[in-house]
Amino acid sequence: MAQFKLPALDPQTVAEVRRSIYPEPFKSRMGDRAKRRLGEACGLTRFGVNLVTLGPGGQSALRHWHTLEDEFVFVLSGEVVLVTDGGEQTLSTGMCAGYPAGKRDAHHFVNRSAKPATYLEIGNRIEGDNAFYPDDDLMWVDDGNGTHGAHKDGRRYA
Amino acid sequence: MAQFKLPALDPQTVAEVRRSIYPEPFKSRMGDRAKRRLGEACGLTRFGVNLVTLGPGGQSALRHWHTLEDEFVFVLSGEVVLVTDGGEQTLSTGMCAGYPAGKRDAHHFVNRSAKPATYLEIGNRIEGDNAFYPDDDLMWVDDGNGTHGAHKDGRRYA
Repeated sequence: MAQFKLPALDPQTVAEVRRSIYPEPFKSRMGDRAKRRLGEACGLTRFGVNLVTLGPGGQSALRHWHTLEDEFVFVLSGEVVLVTDGGEQTLSTGMCAGYPAGKRDAHHFVNRSAKPATYLEIGNRIEGDNAFYPDDDLMWVDDGNGTHGAHKDGRRYA
Repeated sequence: MAQFKLPALDPQTVAEVRRSIYPEPFKSRMGDRAKRRLGEACGLTRFGVNLVTLGPGGQSALRHWHTLEDEFVFVLSGEVVLVTDGGEQTLSTGMCAGYPAGKRDAHHFVNRSAKPATYLEIGNRIEGDNAFYPDDDLMWVDDGNGTHGAHKDGRRYA
Protein backbone atom coordinates (compact mmCIF):
# COMPACT_ATOMS: atom_id res chain seq x y z
CA MET A 1 0.00 0.00 0.00
CA ALA A 2 1.21 3.48 -0.81
CA GLN A 3 2.55 5.46 2.14
CA PHE A 4 1.15 8.98 2.09
CA LYS A 5 2.46 12.07 3.76
CA LEU A 6 0.26 15.04 4.67
CA PRO A 7 -1.60 16.80 3.19
CA ALA A 8 -2.47 13.39 1.60
CA LEU A 9 -3.95 10.75 3.89
CA ASP A 10 -5.10 7.14 3.69
CA PRO A 11 -8.29 7.08 5.82
CA GLN A 12 -7.57 3.50 6.89
CA THR A 13 -4.51 4.75 8.82
CA VAL A 14 -6.69 6.97 11.04
CA ALA A 15 -7.83 5.41 14.33
CA GLU A 16 -11.48 4.45 14.74
CA VAL A 17 -13.33 6.26 17.55
CA ARG A 18 -16.44 4.70 19.10
CA ARG A 19 -17.22 7.22 21.82
CA SER A 20 -20.40 9.32 21.96
CA ILE A 21 -21.08 12.65 23.66
CA TYR A 22 -24.58 11.47 24.63
CA PRO A 23 -25.46 10.53 28.19
CA GLU A 24 -27.06 7.12 28.71
CA PRO A 25 -29.55 5.79 27.79
CA PHE A 26 -28.93 7.49 24.43
CA LYS A 27 -25.29 6.51 23.94
CA SER A 28 -26.05 2.78 23.74
CA ARG A 29 -28.68 3.32 21.07
CA MET A 30 -25.99 4.36 18.58
CA GLY A 31 -25.04 0.68 18.26
CA ASP A 32 -22.14 -0.32 16.03
CA ARG A 33 -20.82 3.10 14.97
CA ALA A 34 -17.15 3.94 14.37
CA LYS A 35 -15.72 7.24 13.16
CA ARG A 36 -12.37 8.15 11.64
CA ARG A 37 -11.73 11.87 12.14
CA LEU A 38 -10.16 12.66 8.77
CA GLY A 39 -10.37 16.45 8.96
CA GLU A 40 -8.67 16.57 12.35
CA ALA A 41 -5.99 14.14 11.10
CA CYS A 42 -5.23 16.69 8.36
CA GLY A 43 -5.10 19.60 10.83
CA LEU A 44 -8.41 21.19 9.85
CA THR A 45 -10.23 23.29 12.45
CA ARG A 46 -13.01 25.12 10.59
CA PHE A 47 -15.07 22.06 9.76
CA GLY A 48 -14.99 18.38 10.68
CA VAL A 49 -14.94 15.48 8.20
CA ASN A 50 -15.57 12.02 9.60
CA LEU A 51 -15.56 8.70 7.76
CA VAL A 52 -18.25 6.75 9.56
CA THR A 53 -18.87 3.00 9.48
CA LEU A 54 -22.37 2.11 10.63
CA GLY A 55 -23.05 -1.56 11.34
CA PRO A 56 -26.47 -3.22 11.04
CA GLY A 57 -28.82 -1.59 13.56
CA GLY A 58 -26.51 1.36 14.10
CA GLN A 59 -27.56 5.02 14.09
CA SER A 60 -25.60 8.10 12.98
CA ALA A 61 -26.98 10.12 15.91
CA LEU A 62 -30.23 10.72 17.73
CA ARG A 63 -32.58 12.52 15.39
CA HIS A 64 -31.61 16.19 15.78
CA TRP A 65 -31.08 19.59 14.17
CA HIS A 66 -28.44 22.28 14.82
CA THR A 67 -28.91 26.02 15.26
CA LEU A 68 -25.57 27.11 13.76
CA GLU A 69 -24.04 24.07 12.08
CA ASP A 70 -24.55 23.11 8.45
CA GLU A 71 -24.20 19.35 8.01
CA PHE A 72 -23.64 17.25 4.89
CA VAL A 73 -23.45 13.48 4.42
CA PHE A 74 -22.36 11.42 1.39
CA VAL A 75 -22.90 7.65 1.28
CA LEU A 76 -19.77 5.75 0.18
CA SER A 77 -20.98 2.15 0.50
CA GLY A 78 -24.01 0.20 1.66
CA GLU A 79 -27.42 1.59 2.40
CA VAL A 80 -28.86 3.82 5.13
CA VAL A 81 -32.32 5.12 5.91
CA LEU A 82 -32.58 8.89 6.34
CA VAL A 83 -35.34 9.80 8.81
CA THR A 84 -36.64 13.38 8.88
CA ASP A 85 -39.90 15.12 9.80
CA GLY A 86 -40.99 14.38 6.22
CA GLY A 87 -40.58 10.60 6.58
CA GLU A 88 -38.01 8.05 5.44
CA GLN A 89 -35.79 7.79 2.37
CA THR A 90 -33.30 5.03 1.64
CA LEU A 91 -29.91 6.28 0.45
CA SER A 92 -27.41 3.99 -1.25
CA THR A 93 -23.87 4.51 -2.51
CA GLY A 94 -23.33 7.89 -4.14
CA MET A 95 -26.40 9.58 -2.63
CA CYS A 96 -26.12 12.55 -0.27
CA ALA A 97 -28.07 14.83 2.06
CA GLY A 98 -27.55 18.33 3.45
CA TYR A 99 -29.01 19.95 6.55
CA PRO A 100 -28.82 23.76 6.71
CA ALA A 101 -28.10 25.35 10.09
CA GLY A 102 -31.27 26.55 11.77
CA LYS A 103 -33.65 24.45 9.69
CA ARG A 104 -35.97 22.82 12.23
CA ASP A 105 -36.12 19.46 10.47
CA ALA A 106 -34.49 16.84 12.67
CA HIS A 107 -32.59 14.07 10.85
CA HIS A 108 -30.50 10.98 11.33
CA PHE A 109 -29.35 7.83 9.51
CA VAL A 110 -30.32 4.32 10.60
CA ASN A 111 -28.76 1.21 9.10
CA ARG A 112 -31.62 -1.24 8.69
CA SER A 113 -29.69 -3.45 6.26
CA ALA A 114 -27.71 -6.59 7.07
CA LYS A 115 -24.36 -5.06 6.02
CA PRO A 116 -22.19 -2.20 7.22
CA ALA A 117 -22.61 1.15 5.48
CA THR A 118 -19.97 3.87 5.22
CA TYR A 119 -20.45 7.58 4.70
CA LEU A 120 -18.69 10.91 5.06
CA GLU A 121 -20.20 13.43 7.51
CA ILE A 122 -19.16 17.08 7.40
CA GLY A 123 -20.10 19.94 9.71
CA ASN A 124 -18.75 23.43 10.34
CA ARG A 125 -17.28 24.15 13.78
CA ILE A 126 -18.75 27.17 15.53
CA GLU A 127 -19.11 28.48 19.07
CA GLY A 128 -22.58 28.60 20.59
CA ASP A 129 -24.18 25.91 18.46
CA ASN A 130 -27.21 24.26 20.10
CA ALA A 131 -28.83 20.98 19.04
CA PHE A 132 -32.42 19.82 19.58
CA TYR A 133 -33.81 16.29 19.64
CA PRO A 134 -37.58 16.17 19.10
CA ASP A 135 -37.91 12.40 19.77
CA ASP A 136 -35.89 12.26 23.01
CA ASP A 137 -35.59 13.98 26.39
CA LEU A 138 -32.36 15.71 25.43
CA MET A 139 -31.11 19.07 24.22
CA TRP A 140 -27.58 20.32 23.70
CA VAL A 141 -27.48 23.91 24.90
CA ASP A 142 -25.14 26.73 25.87
CA ASP A 143 -25.18 28.16 29.42
CA GLY A 144 -22.74 30.95 28.60
CA ASN A 145 -19.76 28.81 29.58
CA GLY A 146 -20.02 26.19 26.85
CA THR A 147 -22.52 23.57 25.75
CA HIS A 148 -23.87 20.61 27.71
CA GLY A 149 -26.57 17.96 27.50
CA ALA A 150 -29.79 18.71 29.36
CA HIS A 151 -33.26 17.31 29.81
CA LYS A 152 -35.98 19.18 27.94
CA ASP A 153 -36.95 20.93 31.22
CA GLY A 154 -33.41 22.33 31.47
CA ARG A 155 -31.92 20.06 34.17
CA ARG A 156 -28.40 18.96 33.26
CA TYR A 157 -27.54 15.39 32.66
CA ALA A 158 -25.07 14.28 35.35
CA MET B 1 -34.22 5.48 -10.04
CA ALA B 2 -35.45 6.63 -6.65
CA GLN B 3 -36.77 10.18 -6.55
CA PHE B 4 -35.42 12.00 -3.54
CA LYS B 5 -36.73 15.05 -1.80
CA LEU B 6 -34.56 17.41 0.25
CA PRO B 7 -32.72 17.06 2.53
CA ALA B 8 -31.81 13.93 0.49
CA LEU B 9 -30.32 14.49 -2.95
CA ASP B 10 -29.14 12.42 -5.90
CA PRO B 11 -25.97 14.20 -7.09
CA GLN B 12 -26.68 13.24 -10.69
CA THR B 13 -29.75 15.52 -10.66
CA VAL B 14 -27.60 18.59 -9.94
CA ALA B 15 -26.46 20.57 -13.00
CA GLU B 16 -22.80 20.43 -14.02
CA VAL B 17 -20.97 23.76 -13.96
CA ARG B 18 -17.86 24.28 -16.08
CA ARG B 19 -17.07 27.92 -15.38
CA SER B 20 -13.89 29.17 -13.67
CA ILE B 21 -13.22 32.37 -11.72
CA TYR B 22 -9.73 32.60 -13.23
CA PRO B 23 -8.83 35.12 -15.91
CA GLU B 24 -7.24 33.78 -19.07
CA PRO B 25 -4.73 32.29 -19.74
CA PHE B 26 -5.36 30.35 -16.52
CA LYS B 27 -8.99 29.40 -17.08
CA SER B 28 -8.23 27.26 -20.14
CA ARG B 29 -5.59 25.29 -18.28
CA MET B 30 -8.27 23.70 -16.07
CA GLY B 31 -9.22 21.50 -19.04
CA ASP B 32 -12.11 19.05 -18.73
CA ARG B 33 -13.45 19.94 -15.26
CA ALA B 34 -17.13 19.86 -14.26
CA LYS B 35 -18.57 20.56 -10.80
CA ARG B 36 -21.92 19.75 -9.24
CA ARG B 37 -22.58 22.11 -6.33
CA LEU B 38 -24.13 19.66 -3.89
CA GLY B 39 -23.93 21.83 -0.77
CA GLU B 40 -25.65 24.76 -2.47
CA ALA B 41 -28.31 22.41 -3.87
CA CYS B 42 -29.09 21.43 -0.26
CA GLY B 43 -29.22 25.06 0.89
CA LEU B 44 -25.91 25.07 2.77
CA THR B 45 -24.11 28.39 3.19
CA ARG B 46 -21.34 27.80 5.73
CA PHE B 47 -19.25 25.48 3.57
CA GLY B 48 -19.33 24.32 -0.02
CA VAL B 49 -19.37 20.70 -1.18
CA ASN B 50 -18.72 20.06 -4.87
CA LEU B 51 -18.72 16.74 -6.70
CA VAL B 52 -16.01 17.26 -9.32
CA THR B 53 -15.40 15.20 -12.46
CA LEU B 54 -11.89 15.75 -13.82
CA GLY B 55 -11.19 14.42 -17.30
CA PRO B 56 -7.77 13.30 -18.54
CA GLY B 57 -5.44 16.30 -18.51
CA GLY B 58 -7.74 18.32 -16.27
CA GLN B 59 -6.72 20.25 -13.16
CA SER B 60 -8.68 20.93 -9.95
CA ALA B 61 -7.31 24.47 -9.78
CA LEU B 62 -4.06 26.35 -10.23
CA ARG B 63 -1.71 25.31 -7.46
CA HIS B 64 -2.69 27.59 -4.55
CA TRP B 65 -3.24 28.01 -0.81
CA HIS B 66 -5.89 29.96 1.13
CA THR B 67 -5.44 32.31 4.07
CA LEU B 68 -8.79 31.61 5.77
CA GLU B 69 -10.30 28.57 4.08
CA ASP B 70 -9.78 24.97 5.18
CA GLU B 71 -10.10 22.61 2.22
CA PHE B 72 -10.66 18.85 2.08
CA VAL B 73 -10.83 16.46 -0.88
CA PHE B 74 -11.92 12.81 -1.03
CA VAL B 75 -11.36 10.71 -4.18
CA LEU B 76 -14.49 8.77 -5.21
CA SER B 77 -13.25 7.15 -8.44
CA GLY B 78 -10.22 7.12 -10.70
CA GLU B 79 -6.80 8.50 -9.91
CA VAL B 80 -5.40 12.00 -9.45
CA VAL B 81 -1.93 13.36 -8.75
CA LEU B 82 -1.68 15.71 -5.77
CA VAL B 83 1.05 18.31 -6.29
CA THR B 84 2.35 20.26 -3.28
CA ASP B 85 5.61 21.95 -2.28
CA GLY B 86 6.71 18.52 -1.04
CA GLY B 87 6.29 16.85 -4.43
CA GLU B 88 3.75 14.54 -6.01
CA GLN B 89 1.56 11.78 -4.60
CA THR B 90 -0.94 9.68 -6.57
CA LEU B 91 -4.34 9.32 -4.89
CA SER B 92 -6.82 6.65 -5.94
CA THR B 93 -10.37 5.84 -4.83
CA GLY B 94 -10.92 6.25 -1.11
CA MET B 95 -7.85 8.42 -0.46
CA CYS B 96 -8.15 12.00 0.81
CA ALA B 97 -6.22 15.19 1.51
CA GLY B 98 -6.76 18.21 3.76
CA TYR B 99 -5.31 21.71 3.52
CA PRO B 100 -5.52 23.83 6.66
CA ALA B 101 -6.23 27.55 6.22
CA GLY B 102 -3.07 29.63 6.36
CA LYS B 103 -0.68 26.76 5.68
CA ARG B 104 1.63 28.06 2.97
CA ASP B 105 1.81 24.81 1.04
CA ALA B 106 0.18 25.28 -2.35
CA HIS B 107 -1.71 22.28 -3.73
CA HIS B 108 -3.79 21.05 -6.63
CA PHE B 109 -4.93 17.83 -8.33
CA VAL B 110 -3.95 16.91 -11.89
CA ASN B 111 -5.49 13.98 -13.76
CA ARG B 112 -2.61 12.35 -15.63
CA SER B 113 -4.53 9.13 -16.22
CA ALA B 114 -6.51 8.13 -19.32
CA LYS B 115 -9.85 8.04 -17.48
CA PRO B 116 -12.05 10.56 -15.67
CA ALA B 117 -11.62 10.87 -11.92
CA THR B 118 -14.28 12.06 -9.48
CA TYR B 119 -13.81 13.58 -6.04
CA LEU B 120 -15.59 15.64 -3.40
CA GLU B 121 -14.10 19.05 -2.55
CA ILE B 122 -15.15 20.87 0.61
CA GLY B 123 -14.22 24.35 1.82
CA ASN B 124 -15.58 26.72 4.44
CA ARG B 125 -17.06 30.02 3.25
CA ILE B 126 -15.60 33.12 4.88
CA GLU B 127 -15.25 36.81 4.13
CA GLY B 128 -11.79 38.18 3.43
CA ASP B 129 -10.17 34.95 2.28
CA ASN B 130 -7.14 35.48 0.02
CA ALA B 131 -5.48 32.86 -2.20
CA PHE B 132 -1.91 32.74 -3.47
CA TYR B 133 -0.50 30.92 -6.49
CA PRO B 134 3.28 30.41 -6.30
CA ASP B 135 3.63 28.99 -9.84
CA ASP B 136 1.60 31.66 -11.66
CA ASP B 137 1.29 35.43 -12.00
CA LEU B 138 -1.95 35.52 -10.04
CA MET B 139 -3.20 36.27 -6.54
CA TRP B 140 -6.75 36.48 -5.21
CA VAL B 141 -6.86 39.39 -2.81
CA ASP B 142 -9.21 41.69 -0.93
CA ASP B 143 -9.17 45.45 -1.59
CA GLY B 144 -11.64 46.22 1.22
CA ASN B 145 -14.62 45.92 -1.14
CA GLY B 146 -14.34 42.22 -1.93
CA THR B 147 -11.83 39.92 -3.58
CA HIS B 148 -10.46 40.03 -7.12
CA GLY B 149 -7.75 38.48 -9.23
CA ALA B 150 -4.53 40.44 -9.56
CA HIS B 151 -1.06 40.12 -10.99
CA LYS B 152 1.65 39.51 -8.40
CA ASP B 153 2.62 43.20 -8.64
CA GLY B 154 -0.93 44.16 -7.59
CA ARG B 155 -2.41 45.25 -10.95
CA ARG B 156 -5.92 43.90 -11.42
CA TYR B 157 -6.78 41.51 -14.16
CA ALA B 158 -9.25 43.20 -16.50
